[in-house]
Amino acid sequence: MKFVINRDLLLLNLTYVSRALSTKTPMPVLTGIKIEIHDNAVFLTASNNEISIQTVIRDKRLLKIEEDGLVVVPGKYFIEMIRKIESKDVDFSTFEENIVKILADRSNFTLNALEKDNYPLISFADSDTVVTIDVGNLKSIIRKTTFATSLSETRVILTGVSVMAEGRKLEVIATDSFRLAKKYIITDTDFPKINAVIPSKSLDELNRIIDENETPIEIHFTPSKALFKYKNILFQTRLIDGSFPNTSNLIPVDFLTSIKFNKNELISAIERASLFTTFDSSSIIKFTLNSDKTIEIASTTNEIGAVKEEVVPLGCSNVLNFQIAFSSKYLLEAIRSMDSTEISVHFTGEIKPFIITGDYDINLTQLILPVRVS
Amino acid sequence: MKFVINRDLLLLNLTYVSRALSTKTPMPVLTGIKIEIHDNAVFLTASNNEISIQTVIRDKRLLKIEEDGLVVVPGKYFIEMIRKIESKDVDFSTFEENIVKILADRSNFTLNALEKDNYPLISFADSDTVVTIDVGNLKSIIRKTTFATSLSETRVILTGVSVMAEGRKLEVIATDSFRLAKKYIITDTDFPKINAVIPSKSLDELNRIIDENETPIEIHFTPSKALFKYKNILFQTRLIDGSFPNTSNLIPVDFLTSIKFNKNELISAIERASLFTTFDSSSIIKFTLNSDKTIEIASTTNEIGAVKEEVVPLGCSNVLNFQIAFSSKYLLEAIRSMDSTEISVHFTGEIKPFIITGDYDINLTQLILPVRVS
Repeated sequence: MKFVINRDLLLLNLTYVSRALSTKTPMPVLTGIKIEIHDNAVFLTASNNEISIQTVIRDKRLLKIEEDGLVVVPGKYFIEMIRKIESKDVDFSTFEENIVKILADRSNFTLNALEKDNYPLISFADSDTVVTIDVGNLKSIIRKTTFATSLSETRVILTGVSVMAEGRKLEVIATDSFRLAKKYIITDTDFPKINAVIPSKSLDELNRIIDENETPIEIHFTPSKALFKYKNILFQTRLIDGSFPNTSNLIPVDFLTSIKFNKNELISAIERASLFTTFDSSSIIKFTLNSDKTIEIASTTNEIGAVKEEVVPLGCSNVLNFQIAFSSKYLLEAIRSMDSTEISVHFTGEIKPFIITGDYDINLTQLILPVRVS
Repeated sequence: MKFVINRDLLLLNLTYVSRALSTKTPMPVLTGIKIEIHDNAVFLTASNNEISIQTVIRDKRLLKIEEDGLVVVPGKYFIEMIRKIESKDVDFSTFEENIVKILADRSNFTLNALEKDNYPLISFADSDTVVTIDVGNLKSIIRKTTFATSLSETRVILTGVSVMAEGRKLEVIATDSFRLAKKYIITDTDFPKINAVIPSKSLDELNRIIDENETPIEIHFTPSKALFKYKNILFQTRLIDGSFPNTSNLIPVDFLTSIKFNKNELISAIERASLFTTFDSSSIIKFTLNSDKTIEIASTTNEIGAVKEEVVPLGCSNVLNFQIAFSSKYLLEAIRSMDSTEISVHFTGEIKPFIITGDYDINLTQLILPVRVS
């Protein structure tokens, strides 16, 4: 194997695949990055069994291949090395089968490769079940839903995000059974039928790689995997087995009252109102609608003290005496995920789920379950 | 107690005293900040037994006192609260002796105070043994020395920085017995006689409070304490008991060769040369002067690989065959502390200490002990 490559281009691609690099693994070879040279291209691959990422570099101006080959380099050291190199180009060659020599300006590195025969075969195969959407749209969906998935492994299915498509509608739902985030998109043409649960962590890793632009991204679904094809990157994740709970009847449609807030004002008030509660674990705040249309957000933490915040909403559809208690963390995460500068909270009852919507958060619903307090 | 104070001014002063706030302490009252109102001023005090900090606020335009008093508020919560408040002014009052009420715009906080009678008496007394220097000068001294102190408590004296003054010379030395940093200043007038060892951590905390300017700072020495008086801040630290090792004969004056480098080029080369060694614990690199005046910096880490860096120095006083091995971490820390863009390394022998100096680092000497390698 022998090739010369532009240092910046290589580092960028290493950063992409590094998202799938294993740290703790029963398969030591997965701490490595596989470098393959064939068909006038460099293929970089990393995998942690959950996610596998491959990038392909073919740019003839920035890459000069002299000899094909395959080698698995220790991932962490290799990336650090390329990051610290300041030269324009980097020169790679292998000798004695398992040793990689890297030359860059006045630097001369010798790196012991990992045993390439141990590297698992990873297939990045296309599927007939394909969805294509704007990458910016996908980023927004991920940001608005994954935070609501469960962190606990007791119900593994809830650590994933449900993706369902039928007809012209694609719906994405995340829930940890105390709150729920739902976003759907409608297109002009029919989607293939899809019913998959994607690990939330995989989507968060994908989100770190993709940009906020209008490049299309293809998502290929098979029964056990989803493959995202974006620019020169293949990002593959396993799916979670099992059936996602049916939440279609959970979202209320009739409301006692809807209250509209300035988003940032509400965030500040909740942050202050929950200041002391975040130090115990409850983070429960009480929300009271007064007959003068003001809202009181309050919390009491026995040892430390109490906070009362008064908020004047932008509007209130129905003024009534109303009190509800819930986790400030859930409300903050739901509101922060939204793009609208004005958001509406819709209540159905003092111990019933409430939802949050925003004018600029099209087809997005955030739902939170309240708690009973004395 | 009752007063109204500008929120930004209060937060700034809380940030200062927070540097001395206890987190883990056998005296729970030390997790609090003491707020005292008397003599038309607000006094904020925090202490962790090692460091005590007090600030005084008297600005009549930004402070309106209605009633004197004393209260100890839970430090962490109090600072977070003031940080989250967005109003211009904050209104404080106490009631029922141990409850503090804080009003700010539409926020209303009630905070349980700590038992003020438990707060220890802390004296910030002046001394006749006073040194006055520019605060920018002090910052520079701290930055160039404290990193060389010992982190291990086995020889407590080495966790401190020695400060000695006699005649017109004030000398500051830090060493962990493997390396040493020494900086002195000479003034026009005599210093009082001083021989003190200040905990390195205290100086690092002080460094976070003081600015890079020419305000004078007074340092008052007593046998067990040093008190720094800067702007409206009193910063007091205990001193370390015991006698600092005599290092005056340690610094060589005759050299085999002196080599001058571009500082940033040398840093980059060492960083690359020690890339793999930082993952084991040794971080030992070999430094070889070749007869063609080039320098080779190299390291080998059995499992991972090897690096060779070639550096062309700016100058070399005496070309000879010479090889020395040492910790790359020590050299990097020593060089990074320096302001000069060109630095010189002066060698006395292959297993003898070497020193580093720089044209713009006046009266600063960094010394490093090499290691024997096969």
